[in-house]
Amino acid sequence: MSAIFCLLLFFLLSPLKVPAHQIPHCLIKGLPLVRNLSGYPQNNFGREGLSHITIAGAVLDGLKEVELWLQTFSPGSRTPIHRHSCEEIFVVLKGSGTLFLAPDLHMRQPAKPNEFSIFPNSTFSIPVNAVHQVY
Amino acid sequence: MSAIFCLLLFFLLSPLKVPAHQIPHCLIKGLPLVRNLSGYPQNNFGREGLSHITIAGAVLDGLKEVELWLQTFSPGSRTPIHRHSCEEIFVVLKGSGTLFLAPDLHMRQPAKPNEFSIFPNSTFSIPVNAVHQVY
Repeated sequence: MSAIFCLLLFFLLSPLKVPAHQIPHCLIKGLPLVRNLSGYPQNNFGREGLSHITIAGAVLDGLKEVELWLQTFSPGSRTPIHRHSCEEIFVVLKGSGTLFLAPDLHMRQPAKPNEFSIFPNSTFSIPVNAVHQVY
Repeated sequence: MSAIFCLLLFFLLSPLKVPAHQIPHCLIKGLPLVRNLSGYPQNNFGREGLSHITIAGAVLDGLKEVELWLQTFSPGSRTPIHRHSCEEIFVVLKGSGTLFLAPDLHMRQPAKPNEFSIFPNSTFSIPVNAVHQVY
């Protein structure tokens, strides 16, 4: 990867128990429904080179179906090789890198992943259970 | 509304029939998996003042759970008063306006909606079935 880049990620969540008849204007008391993204707390979950911000999700908004993240990877850092039981959409705001994507969900032996260049103002999506890595 | 603004919207979709074992690198032949957002086709669905771009979704990507849209409303235009059976997250990229949101899902008579100012770099989410309008 040649530079820092930013990603927006959207995840489908497992169901959470939130009363269906109430409209939760915000689950965390004191936070407004409409919030300014400036000054949102960042986390790196112990992974060097990562900056993660949850823009909207289960904890802040009581969402049960979708989350929105903003992530920044420093040069040389990468996601793990991973998969998940939800769909994911990426929008690359800055920087460039490589997407590695397994060619099939039901391969019986290891195979070379497909490689795709990613660049500023590009978008791509990851199907459910597709093994992938962003580098 | 005082100015043009742009929104990103994320919708949960009804299930579509896409083979689960194949990883659809793109459902529309000839379109790459990683795509440049510049030059994406716009539509207004016959509504003056609206510009709509589907960044990722069912048709382009075979997504079954989530869509990502970029919308721009010209000054004075607005969404209909509406609701939907999926969650929605907004990120306001430019401009300002007002969000109208019904206070409860099970009201038995009309009531004044809650009003929230929206502004650049703000975010908010709409729960399932909550009646709302962005103005």
